[in-house]
Amino acid sequence: MPTEFAFIDALKARVRGGEGVRQGIGDDGAVLAPPAGEELVVSTDTLVAGVHFPQDAHPADVGYKAAAVNLSDLAAMGATPRWCTLALTVPSLDPGYVEPLVAGLLALLDAHATALVGGDTTRGPLALTLTAIGSVPAGQALRRNGARPGDAVYVSGTLGDAAAALALRGTRLDPQDGEAKLARTRLAQRLARPTPRVALGQALRGLAHACIDVSDGLAADLGHICRQSGVAAVIEADALPVSRALAPLEIDPARRLRLQLGGDDYELCFALAPEDEAQLAEIAHACHVPLTRIGSLGPGEGVHVLDHAGRVIAPPVAGYEHFG
Amino acid sequence: MPTEFAFIDALKARVRGGEGVRQGIGDDGAVLAPPAGEELVVSTDTLVAGVHFPQDAHPADVGYKAAAVNLSDLAAMGATPRWCTLALTVPSLDPGYVEPLVAGLLALLDAHATALVGGDTTRGPLALTLTAIGSVPAGQALRRNGARPGDAVYVSGTLGDAAAALALRGTRLDPQDGEAKLARTRLAQRLARPTPRVALGQALRGLAHACIDVSDGLAADLGHICRQSGVAAVIEADALPVSRALAPLEIDPARRLRLQLGGDDYELCFALAPEDEAQLAEIAHACHVPLTRIGSLGPGEGVHVLDHAGRVIAPPVAGYEHFG
Repeated sequence: MPTEFAFIDALKARVRGGEGVRQGIGDDGAVLAPPAGEELVVSTDTLVAGVHFPQDAHPADVGYKAAAVNLSDLAAMGATPRWCTLALTVPSLDPGYVEPLVAGLLALLDAHATALVGGDTTRGPLALTLTAIGSVPAGQALRRNGARPGDAVYVSGTLGDAAAALALRGTRLDPQDGEAKLARTRLAQRLARPTPRVALGQALRGLAHACIDVSDGLAADLGHICRQSGVAAVIEADALPVSRALAPLEIDPARRLRLQLGGDDYELCFALAPEDEAQLAEIAHACHVPLTRIGSLGPGEGVHVLDHAGRVIAPPVAGYEHFG
Repeated sequence: MPTEFAFIDALKARVRGGEGVRQGIGDDGAVLAPPAGEELVVSTDTLVAGVHFPQDAHPADVGYKAAAVNLSDLAAMGATPRWCTLALTVPSLDPGYVEPLVAGLLALLDAHATALVGGDTTRGPLALTLTAIGSVPAGQALRRNGARPGDAVYVSGTLGDAAAALALRGTRLDPQDGEAKLARTRLAQRLARPTPRVALGQALRGLAHACIDVSDGLAADLGHICRQSGVAAVIEADALPVSRALAPLEIDPARRLRLQLGGDDYELCFALAPEDEAQLAEIAHACHVPLTRIGSLGPGEGVHVLDHAGRVIAPPVAGYEHFG
């Protein structure tokens, strides 16, 4: 088994340099030159084995997802990702595990020109904590507290794939049904390797009044925008975008709605003035992601989900609560 | 048991604002304004229950130490600490545990005007990952790679207390021996609540050629300076500073040396030109910490520890290796 120092040396050799990195891995701290005139955006997320991913998940997927959830937070702030630290806790430095994990992590970081600049390696129950640092032009970060009554509410991509993948895990699959198998693979991929909407977040700067990533579930996350902005949201269940993998599955509407509000989708939910909606078509095209209007904001509080007949679906479905 | 959101709200209410904090706890990421003309220094450290602290350690000590080890890394870089994120993994949000933990953490952060600006709370085996962000005037961070042959090697404070506290844990103590009890309490305090040498690190900017914090043990940590600077170090065992708590304990010299090289002391070890040594008296006075010359650097490689007769003590004692 390699020692910790050998692991760090190997990591150092594999990591790409990044803009503004004066000192990367290999000192007591990283030294970074922030872009002039920009503010920093910092996000920290932990994935714990057996809680956020199954113990037997492929290590490359684990590394990828750890990067994805952090980049998704930066995306929700409209930030350009720049640097990242990795705190890796593992039972042992088994190269068969940590090498693909690091490869999965670096694959996504490299794709976003984000440099791994330091971290810590410790022995213990498997968990990863990433801290991602990005930047935005001063004053332009997307927040949760700027939404206004009358705003339209949008979501990127589709909702429900991750929750559907979780729900389908371990259920019976007809081995002859190629289409069902393909759909399941696509859903599993969305759960294991979500796409952080990094370009979209940056494109929404100066346009969206509020933005959040849908990690804990649409109801919970939009609820944060409502609470912090002092508004109410009305969402139409039928408007929630469904992926081509999820759509053909024979799921009753109530259950499908639960999946769509279920979380782990890492799409962006944002509010903007109706007069600015026209700009979204171009942004969707440029960022290669569909943008769907799912409702609107008004005075009041809370997130209210309406069915096809305009009835409020009660009780509102809660999002992911880590200690629930 | 409070929910995660209630915990975050409570934390948000307790945390002090900090300079440059445009958005603290409560969004997808923190928004921070870096000081103009400065570079950032970023450090991440994890403490795992049962590995870095005993499962039954007082939560206030655990929180304090998590902050201390990260601030110590910033100190070793000569940085002024500014902001911090906390990734807290706990089996449950038991207020009897997490409240004193947070209090211990904030006590040290507040003392160093360092704002807790975000983080993550997850369910799992007890562990804390802090990411501390500081800043230094551009180009002035203390590194490991600038030491030169001929430099004098210094260490702050005293060495061996933390390892002695660990070694004494669980051993018999004569309840009548008040002095031994006091010594043990002082040693335990040094292990549980190390003092990061934040002011010293900043005072050494522009003076020390290389600096590191002694977290993994003097031999291992000075070894990093030697390797990255391309020099050898000769250290005199008798010169290693001993605390008033450790000195009177009846420990044979070889064992005492092992304790002093044992790690977890969070003192700074640094190299500087002999002609600059005269400046250290004033710095020691200003920073309220003794500074002791323990050896010197020359051409070659490795850390060589000499006994009182000038004999190399072999084999060199290894530092703390997390996967050893």
